[in-house]
Amino acid sequence: MPKLIFASTRDSDMHYAVKIPITSPFFLLEIRGQKLVYLDKRDFGLIPREARVKSIRLEPLADTAKKLRMKTSDRNKLVYTIFKKNKLFGKKIEVPVHFPLDMADFLRRRGAKLVPIYPFYPERAVKTEEEIKYIQENLSHTKAAFRIIEKILGQSKIKRNRIYYQNKVLTSEFLKQEAEYALVEKGMFDLLGMIISTGKQTAIPHHDGSGSLKPHEPIVCDIFPRHRKTGYFADMTRTYVKGKPSEKVLKMHNAVLKAQLAAIKKIPASPAGRRAGVQAKEVYETAAGIIKKAGFDIGEVGFIHSLGHGVGLDIHEKPSLKADSEDILEAGNVITIEPGLYYPEVGGVRIEDIILVTKTGCKNLTNYPKKLTIV
Amino acid sequence: MPKLIFASTRDSDMHYAVKIPITSPFFLLEIRGQKLVYLDKRDFGLIPREARVKSIRLEPLADTAKKLRMKTSDRNKLVYTIFKKNKLFGKKIEVPVHFPLDMADFLRRRGAKLVPIYPFYPERAVKTEEEIKYIQENLSHTKAAFRIIEKILGQSKIKRNRIYYQNKVLTSEFLKQEAEYALVEKGMFDLLGMIISTGKQTAIPHHDGSGSLKPHEPIVCDIFPRHRKTGYFADMTRTYVKGKPSEKVLKMHNAVLKAQLAAIKKIPASPAGRRAGVQAKEVYETAAGIIKKAGFDIGEVGFIHSLGHGVGLDIHEKPSLKADSEDILEAGNVITIEPGLYYPEVGGVRIEDIILVTKTGCKNLTNYPKKLTIV
Repeated sequence: MPKLIFASTRDSDMHYAVKIPITSPFFLLEIRGQKLVYLDKRDFGLIPREARVKSIRLEPLADTAKKLRMKTSDRNKLVYTIFKKNKLFGKKIEVPVHFPLDMADFLRRRGAKLVPIYPFYPERAVKTEEEIKYIQENLSHTKAAFRIIEKILGQSKIKRNRIYYQNKVLTSEFLKQEAEYALVEKGMFDLLGMIISTGKQTAIPHHDGSGSLKPHEPIVCDIFPRHRKTGYFADMTRTYVKGKPSEKVLKMHNAVLKAQLAAIKKIPASPAGRRAGVQAKEVYETAAGIIKKAGFDIGEVGFIHSLGHGVGLDIHEKPSLKADSEDILEAGNVITIEPGLYYPEVGGVRIEDIILVTKTGCKNLTNYPKKLTIV
Repeated sequence: MPKLIFASTRDSDMHYAVKIPITSPFFLLEIRGQKLVYLDKRDFGLIPREARVKSIRLEPLADTAKKLRMKTSDRNKLVYTIFKKNKLFGKKIEVPVHFPLDMADFLRRRGAKLVPIYPFYPERAVKTEEEIKYIQENLSHTKAAFRIIEKILGQSKIKRNRIYYQNKVLTSEFLKQEAEYALVEKGMFDLLGMIISTGKQTAIPHHDGSGSLKPHEPIVCDIFPRHRKTGYFADMTRTYVKGKPSEKVLKMHNAVLKAQLAAIKKIPASPAGRRAGVQAKEVYETAAGIIKKAGFDIGEVGFIHSLGHGVGLDIHEKPSLKADSEDILEAGNVITIEPGLYYPEVGGVRIEDIILVTKTGCKNLTNYPKKLTIV
């Protein structure tokens, strides 16, 4: 089925399709194995000659489109012209689920058969060698940020229920900025806003954290930066306690770690004994089982989110590792395994690594210590 | 008309509506002057109690929705339940143009009358005192980045058609990173990827630039960072020549500067002599007129883009200052005025300031020197 996108390359599907940064939205039509690009003339120069010959054909239709006598926007005139020229009206065309609704309405009134699909490029879930290399490099930069966080926590002192670093109260904001500097230095940036939460904040997985960090309570650090050039993400979480963790938090951390290791171990083995092709929900269930066995809850409190997700040009992509997932893991998937436990009166604990699914098993691309306590 | 959004607060309209960072997508229904929020239970804690009482009502419908016997996604079940509970089927509902197409199809098959509109919140074009303050602060941080760029260019030396800084060839990448550090220090970040282009690259307005910077040729620096906390952007461009600009570039810079000043001067005065209410396209025409009179072109080469745009929670928002704009400027608009000239064989020149439209005139919020040559 032909595929049509209207977006800039800030959109991950468009980025995946053209691999050249173009910041204004444009049309990409994939038809009969060809990528036809309908670009603003001013942006023609952004596409190098090699790319044009190899895979991308520039089709300058904007001038033709502008001459259409229709009372509508230039972009609607252009998409109408694209449909006419390629005889697309009446044929089924796949579009992303975030295709502009006004444009979809305009096209459908004229006979277009648009089929919104997600994922738009299912093949994105299986990474190439190059993509894996990008993500692994991103992880090494992300680990550098974690080392800085651990160093600062290590050099800090506890006084009167506060943590002090270089004689100043240590805050979430300060740690975030130090981590951000470390990322920027390596060509990565904190596009989506990292999490450094503390105390009761940590009981809310999406709380990004603020204020002074509490000693003897969980500090959840979840960093998911994007590489400026390649567009790929990393994703990594560690939970620390500066000082002495409570018994409950110690137990939570142990259970989460055990669940994570068991889930990772589960990845290569399918129920039939094959070394790939395990169902994503089985991996989730493995982690959930361990957590239950350790005496913790699944659902409203305790383990309240999914086990993980694919990572690539989006921070969350296929496959999905949740209880009702229908995805099957396959070699080349790059996924997070991130069990967590959350109790409003105690706080939260989460540990997250990135795992590459291989033909014969799996590989932990993060490969970084998981110590809870920093004295 | 009721309004419905489905997005996280990374979406500018959702951010505008709720002003609390919530990174998972959720539903917001504006109806009868109330904001009803349908949030994942795990995110309830992100909304402070004050906000809940004052303007936002949390409606926990997810559990009811999940019980629906429908073969569809949880989010479709939830939006269906929201429509049922609020008797929205059959009524016209405004949605943003980027409302998910699959969800729109699901709802429409069941009788929903969705009307995609842009802008979704037209009132965003008129800024409050607070929003103006945010943007002005952002500009002061952005100017700090420009001062660093000018300082580095000033301390650099030209040798054999290269620019050297601290004995290394000066590159676009290096300047971008120095600017990025300066922004991060102030709580801003380069969300969309700044432009520092050089030589022939500058003839393509959207070329973000790369490689070693060329002496005696234009270096276009266009920086548009976002504030991490407030979500507002700044936007600012200067064009430099390290060394001696050509006659042509000098002339281009003069014409662009003259066009910019004339356009800014035009803003307060309407044709009828009033001090507000000028048409955006008239301001564009003022700039275009000056550029033509100086002997340059409008269209395919020369002045090839619009004159400016509103800036706020999006980098490009209403009003639009282009030849065919139907927008009228009003007090409280915060807009860029950024004429430019582009010739493939010479390069490009652009100067961009941010202007606040006031009741009695306008105010340049950028207020920063516009020198071309750095010796």
